[in-house]
Amino acid sequence: MVRTVEELRERIRAGGAKIPAEKVIRNGQLVNVMTSEIYPADIAVYKDMIAAVGDVEDYVGPDTEVIDAKGRYLVPGMIDGHIHSECSKLSITSYAKAVVPHGTTSMISGLDEYISVSNLDGLKEIFAEVKQSPLKVFWGAPYKTPYTVPQSTVSFNFTKDVHEQVQQWPECYGVWETVTEFVQEEDEDTLGAISLASKNRLPVFGCAPMASGTKLNAYLCSGVRLDHESYDHVEAVEKMRKGMHMLIRESCVTHFLAENIRAVTEVNPYLARRVSFCTDDVTATDIMEKGHMDHLVRLAIAAGVEPMTAIQMATINSAEAYRIDHLVGSICPGRIADILFVSDLDPFEVDEVMTNGTMVAKGHKLTYPLSAPARSPIFQGELKCAKTTAEDFRYHVPIQNGKAKVLSLDVKGPFVRKRRDVTLKVENGVVQPDVAQDAIMVSVLERFGRNGNRSLAFCSGWKLKKGAMASTNAPDDNNLVVMGANAEDMSFAVNYLIEQGGGQVVVEDGKVIEFLPLPVGGIVSDEEPETVAVMEKKIDEAARYLGSDLPNPMMYMFFLPITAIPDYALTDAGPVDYKALTTYDPILELTEEE
Amino acid sequence: MVRTVEELRERIRAGGAKIPAEKVIRNGQLVNVMTSEIYPADIAVYKDMIAAVGDVEDYVGPDTEVIDAKGRYLVPGMIDGHIHSECSKLSITSYAKAVVPHGTTSMISGLDEYISVSNLDGLKEIFAEVKQSPLKVFWGAPYKTPYTVPQSTVSFNFTKDVHEQVQQWPECYGVWETVTEFVQEEDEDTLGAISLASKNRLPVFGCAPMASGTKLNAYLCSGVRLDHESYDHVEAVEKMRKGMHMLIRESCVTHFLAENIRAVTEVNPYLARRVSFCTDDVTATDIMEKGHMDHLVRLAIAAGVEPMTAIQMATINSAEAYRIDHLVGSICPGRIADILFVSDLDPFEVDEVMTNGTMVAKGHKLTYPLSAPARSPIFQGELKCAKTTAEDFRYHVPIQNGKAKVLSLDVKGPFVRKRRDVTLKVENGVVQPDVAQDAIMVSVLERFGRNGNRSLAFCSGWKLKKGAMASTNAPDDNNLVVMGANAEDMSFAVNYLIEQGGGQVVVEDGKVIEFLPLPVGGIVSDEEPETVAVMEKKIDEAARYLGSDLPNPMMYMFFLPITAIPDYALTDAGPVDYKALTTYDPILELTEEE
Repeated sequence: MVRTVEELRERIRAGGAKIPAEKVIRNGQLVNVMTSEIYPADIAVYKDMIAAVGDVEDYVGPDTEVIDAKGRYLVPGMIDGHIHSECSKLSITSYAKAVVPHGTTSMISGLDEYISVSNLDGLKEIFAEVKQSPLKVFWGAPYKTPYTVPQSTVSFNFTKDVHEQVQQWPECYGVWETVTEFVQEEDEDTLGAISLASKNRLPVFGCAPMASGTKLNAYLCSGVRLDHESYDHVEAVEKMRKGMHMLIRESCVTHFLAENIRAVTEVNPYLARRVSFCTDDVTATDIMEKGHMDHLVRLAIAAGVEPMTAIQMATINSAEAYRIDHLVGSICPGRIADILFVSDLDPFEVDEVMTNGTMVAKGHKLTYPLSAPARSPIFQGELKCAKTTAEDFRYHVPIQNGKAKVLSLDVKGPFVRKRRDVTLKVENGVVQPDVAQDAIMVSVLERFGRNGNRSLAFCSGWKLKKGAMASTNAPDDNNLVVMGANAEDMSFAVNYLIEQGGGQVVVEDGKVIEFLPLPVGGIVSDEEPETVAVMEKKIDEAARYLGSDLPNPMMYMFFLPITAIPDYALTDAGPVDYKALTTYDPILELTEEE
Repeated sequence: MVRTVEELRERIRAGGAKIPAEKVIRNGQLVNVMTSEIYPADIAVYKDMIAAVGDVEDYVGPDTEVIDAKGRYLVPGMIDGHIHSECSKLSITSYAKAVVPHGTTSMISGLDEYISVSNLDGLKEIFAEVKQSPLKVFWGAPYKTPYTVPQSTVSFNFTKDVHEQVQQWPECYGVWETVTEFVQEEDEDTLGAISLASKNRLPVFGCAPMASGTKLNAYLCSGVRLDHESYDHVEAVEKMRKGMHMLIRESCVTHFLAENIRAVTEVNPYLARRVSFCTDDVTATDIMEKGHMDHLVRLAIAAGVEPMTAIQMATINSAEAYRIDHLVGSICPGRIADILFVSDLDPFEVDEVMTNGTMVAKGHKLTYPLSAPARSPIFQGELKCAKTTAEDFRYHVPIQNGKAKVLSLDVKGPFVRKRRDVTLKVENGVVQPDVAQDAIMVSVLERFGRNGNRSLAFCSGWKLKKGAMASTNAPDDNNLVVMGANAEDMSFAVNYLIEQGGGQVVVEDGKVIEFLPLPVGGIVSDEEPETVAVMEKKIDEAARYLGSDLPNPMMYMFFLPITAIPDYALTDAGPVDYKALTTYDPILELTEEE
């Protein structure tokens, strides 16, 4: 955050009580995360800054507003240490409406899904949206995009040349989610981004699931500072012993907190110092039902962590990990006035929220109207791909009739896809999906008008018996993913999304069962979070109506293009073997029959 | 520290055991300051980097040297969190010889005394010297120089325009020792430096003795991150509650550790997390007799701090405070290989030292010959001031004979000078110093050829009965300071230093009693630390022979030009009233007599 000399003058005067505070908060119990103490202290606020903490008599002027904390705890605004908010299908504005009332006042994000569907101008448009919202974003520049191996297609490729530019921006606080494999393989763009970060004094954020031993050491020698993805606490402990900050991830699909927190509760309480929290991917539904960072604090306390320690994990620890502790994460003079009024520490309950010195939320709701900005053409989600026919989703093979043994992507969890060999009929030169065997078709269509790529593969685990479903919100590329029991419905679903300009749809027999519009870049919505949560549920219900019994059928599908997940993936460039880092041929064997 | 892509490749390969380690350390007990654990772990070292910690089998190649730790503790190299090494009168090379064998492998410094006697080219020359030494310097750019109010004279003025340039340098890790008053007074250069630091992502280091309440709040609102100067633990606790990192200072003249550590041992053990150590000013003698950072660790342990906690204060805490924890402060893969072999934790005893991956010291001695670099003309200390006569040190008044009541600077401690009113005789228009009343003369002569300034004032507390003493090592301006019982000896001492090109001298009746040459810029020596320590003692002994009973008569004198010290100071621009921030007239009253 760049401060001009004029701004510094004003801050120094306000801090020195030469200008009266705009607000003082009286009668609160300060939760001092810097010292692990709780004691009565008043707070003086000038504009977006905490001017004084403790005795604030000198700061009260004739126009100073007095806010009565009524004995509640005053807790620093919380920080989500790693989040792709786009995954919630809520625009920044809608997302802020959902999470700020739960006490999340800052997030660390690459905003990478926005970039994948737009470009640097799109990113600047999002920065502007952030600025008028009550939620702060500390942006990390994606180490490179697309993240895929082999390379898939996105709207905008983030390269080291882009880093030359963006790392100079004041909005840039680091390098986002640098994945182990790209470091290990000495990828030119990735190392370029890290090298530039060393010059620009920026930390490098990591992504090192299941890294240990020499693999982890190599990664650390590149200079990555922190990680947000340990599959168990043993992995987390090794990383911390080797000097990493550890963010425990509790996303809507990977519930790691209860397990990972054992690093602190069972192995070594001292580790708490460098543990913090993130949600990575959340749904509107999850936030509406459970809350957000407040939920993680409650989970940690339930797992045996002291409330103070859990609050530190949600505030100062993250701030220190990301080197933004001079701005957020504590209630201290000079920091940004993000203050939560908390009625109880256990269970942890956020009652009211101040961000940037303004009271913005109460009772889990924003207390003022907030509208999304007008969207430029960049985000007025035209899908730049041609309409399809059923023929596009038929898998042709060089035999007329017989059998095809195929490799089907078998989903075993949100981030696990295993190999499953299925033998399917070949009729008239086309491999026939077979709902009885749970082997249906899935396709990814490039939608940015760059090359018209379209892939086709077989998948299992979704158990669709009929119809199709499709989504243009599909991290990290956000191409159009479609899955279906028959080619006709797949084509219909795709064409419907093209007509609508993006969203999620479930169809059956040429009819739309549910549609969730995502008009902003085809990935997010400006609707109220409650509305999106309702639609989100309806979409999954519709998928269940088609036959799926997965907890989040749509989400499990839209993660398919992420190639950093064992063992298989599907991008617009084709079906991907995660271990071999290549595309593969889904047809294992063909047997011609008369 | 900027790393090129090529360097990153090499580091990743070494970390991944694709290149064998150059050395492995076996059979040691790792003191893991990240986790507060001690356990057996081997260490692989590649060039100056720790490549692996724990199991290092994969890193051993045919040429890998095996170092047997013989069961000793492996502790990260220690960091002096705030030091003007120039004050020791040892050049960087000599200073490294003194402190590295005691386990100090890094220091945070403004190198400001070097700058005051040279310029940015001089600074670059020092950077080069640092690079070939086993000691690392993390440089903070002085917020502005001279530090004095009213402004005195130095060789090179550090302004905000200089900051525009130097903050871009990779050697720059922050803004050095930003004094409260300059922030409070909204000094243009100071705010300029802070504003630039916010742009350049650099932390601002502070200097806030006795700051509390609104004064401290104002200071914090400017963005200063840490402080190294609390006069008692109550002050330290307030600063830490308000979010500052706290460096406890234990210098050769201000012994604050035993008192300040009470913040941790008596008030709140949790505060330990953000406490670290610094020495600020040390003498060669002190280092030879007590040690350096190892001494501070011993003091902290003696004061009741756990050895692990004390070691953290000397390592990782400082590294985190200064945001250099990705480089130093812990033994983790990717960090610089600064490793101490410690035979015992209590009493803490540094046995051998590795810096930058090389074994450099054993038994408190460097184990290899290290020579200072050839000095360029910048530091070949010619004093650019004219020779003096006794007349220059006679205080003339507009009466011929009578009495003068004068304000004498009365030294009460190294950093305390109080007002003392003394009535002296006036003879032939000159105020006569009076050793019986302990009121003698003191003068500061500008020595950089910029304006020929020369001041003259009265002082007490040194109790010189005869002779004079002078020094060109005199922080922070390093002008020539001279004090004496008579004008003749003062002039002789000054002229002697001019002839010798700088140093410290004690004279009596036109003869040199002791001389300590400081040929490098007139402030430091390339002699062995033991040699300088001996000379240092002799100089103080000589001052005691002149009558002084102060613990460090020369040092108490050479601190006189620091204006940030209550209540009075003396610079080349005149005698200074610290509270009024102006020069003052030492003549309070003149009474003419026949």
